[in-house]
Amino acid sequence: MEILEPTIARITPQDAAWRDRATRRLEQLTMPHWALGRLMDLAVDLAGMTWSLQPPVARRAVVVMAADHGVAQEGVSKYPQEVTLQMVRNFAAGGAGINALAGAAGAKVVVVDMGVAGNLKDLVDSGTILCKHIAPGTSSMARGPAMTREQAVRAVEAGIEVAQALAASTDVFGTGDMGIANTTPSSAIIAALCRTPVEEVTGQGTGIDEEQRRHKISVIKKALAINRPNIADGLDVLAKVGGFEIGGIAGLILGAAALRKPVIVDGFISTAAALIARSLAPVSCEYMIAAHRSAEQGHHAALEHLNKQPLLNLGLRLGEGTGAALAMHLVEGAARILTKVATFEEAAVSKADK
Amino acid sequence: MEILEPTIARITPQDAAWRDRATRRLEQLTMPHWALGRLMDLAVDLAGMTWSLQPPVARRAVVVMAADHGVAQEGVSKYPQEVTLQMVRNFAAGGAGINALAGAAGAKVVVVDMGVAGNLKDLVDSGTILCKHIAPGTSSMARGPAMTREQAVRAVEAGIEVAQALAASTDVFGTGDMGIANTTPSSAIIAALCRTPVEEVTGQGTGIDEEQRRHKISVIKKALAINRPNIADGLDVLAKVGGFEIGGIAGLILGAAALRKPVIVDGFISTAAALIARSLAPVSCEYMIAAHRSAEQGHHAALEHLNKQPLLNLGLRLGEGTGAALAMHLVEGAARILTKVATFEEAAVSKADK
Repeated sequence: MEILEPTIARITPQDAAWRDRATRRLEQLTMPHWALGRLMDLAVDLAGMTWSLQPPVARRAVVVMAADHGVAQEGVSKYPQEVTLQMVRNFAAGGAGINALAGAAGAKVVVVDMGVAGNLKDLVDSGTILCKHIAPGTSSMARGPAMTREQAVRAVEAGIEVAQALAASTDVFGTGDMGIANTTPSSAIIAALCRTPVEEVTGQGTGIDEEQRRHKISVIKKALAINRPNIADGLDVLAKVGGFEIGGIAGLILGAAALRKPVIVDGFISTAAALIARSLAPVSCEYMIAAHRSAEQGHHAALEHLNKQPLLNLGLRLGEGTGAALAMHLVEGAARILTKVATFEEAAVSKADK
Repeated sequence: MEILEPTIARITPQDAAWRDRATRRLEQLTMPHWALGRLMDLAVDLAGMTWSLQPPVARRAVVVMAADHGVAQEGVSKYPQEVTLQMVRNFAAGGAGINALAGAAGAKVVVVDMGVAGNLKDLVDSGTILCKHIAPGTSSMARGPAMTREQAVRAVEAGIEVAQALAASTDVFGTGDMGIANTTPSSAIIAALCRTPVEEVTGQGTGIDEEQRRHKISVIKKALAINRPNIADGLDVLAKVGGFEIGGIAGLILGAAALRKPVIVDGFISTAAALIARSLAPVSCEYMIAAHRSAEQGHHAALEHLNKQPLLNLGLRLGEGTGAALAMHLVEGAARILTKVATFEEAAVSKADK
């Protein structure tokens, strides 16, 4: 807890005075009042986070946290566990969805091994990926805790360390995930922390059919019944029914918030991690930007619980940080509205009649 | 009609074989089936439009068509008519919302004087804006036709000419508008072509109150009653209750479609113009990409009539092409999914169990 507690202590609410300054400027821009809608709301948030009317947004990183899950052995996914390792190699080679979309967003992709079951030594040694490897996958949460409490703390602290390491070169963070079976712990976390029935927050993941989904629901119910996570304690929820990459994402969010930098929360798995972050430090929500509404059932409930309205709704269900990458451009747009648009006075444009 | 008719004759449907090729590649990418949702649908569209699995999207232009409206004298807007001229100067100086957002989109802004009431000679002479000036504003549609049929043809042909002039340097077009009072003719067009009650498609525009909105509705009803536009004839609708910039946008859309280039349709005014384009050449719809759902009441009905689901929903109600600029990035993302993501085979990633 040497990193976690001081980090949480450093997180402050958005600054009200900077929010007011931004609002006043936006109200004077050469356009009808608040005519750019939610982009202007976002501009006010950016000013409040960064204490600036020129919020820096140029340097962007999508952090893709990867790990395996013991619960994969319960047959909850359509893909074999080896795909986690293969996809990490695909990220490193630049061939995945996140590489394509981060490229369009002008964002670098930072891949972190949080606990992949497989050998990634070559990529770690070459500096291609970061190593915060905790164990080669969690234990099956259907048979006991996914990880120890100590491992949960290490996972969150690893995420904070990544945020700190990237801080000097990053204005805007995006979260991303890779881990076969990881919609299962995410649904468990969302069901627990939002107090929602498991059925409502358990979806098709990578494309399982209805029979497989019923099995997945029964596995999650069993995991919650066996482990009885304490929903007042985010670390307990993470340890009992979470995953290493989920802890890493929660830590990245806390680390970004402590640095007063915006963090764009990707889809279903990242939102489950955001709920863990919120549980540990409620004010961290003020630095989260919800990227998109995932096609995965249950994302809606998680977003509502976070009180976040996502920027995009494109039927995405890939993860990897792809939604966060797509939303980075809108964050840039919001910042530009503050910095690049003239006021009525500056442009000598007549105001409305009243 | 020397330009219009041959242009309409050149517009062909999207190519089914290229759509199939794109679909087959997307189904083999290293991700669950169709996991990037609507972005993949858009990628298929781009392939079908451009006859390519590498749809070009790098060179982008937002064309902002500006003109004045005689109906402004009926007191339908909150802003004085001189703001059209002032905003054109603001575009030219780079200080408007569209300049900020086009910059973020890597798009150039092309401003066209379609009929602004005021002197823009300096900007035309310096090559800062294009001149397709038809007249210094339309006549009031509440007292007779907004323009002659000949002027309507000239407006649409001017838009086609702009598309043709930009073709060699533009892969993706975006539409934009400027014209004080132009939600009024747009509502009239939408009410006529969608056969929807005027009340349902008349909104607050730049921010009028409910009493002013009722007046605006009565003006539109009067215009439709006096002019009786023939809804089977898009040019008649444009002439009776349209505007010069609306005709120009319709022409830009037709021109882009004839060139087999995607055209991103901005908000309320641009969608009214898209309805005119559709009326003149129904297959032109296959080249339109709806940028966003505007906050303006009635946009929904117009989008439904076009059978288009917009990419964004951010409460925008500015026009100028700002929504089109924001959506350009998503079009780039869609193209990159086709060109930059590896297949399972290429990346040696295991497929789903079945």
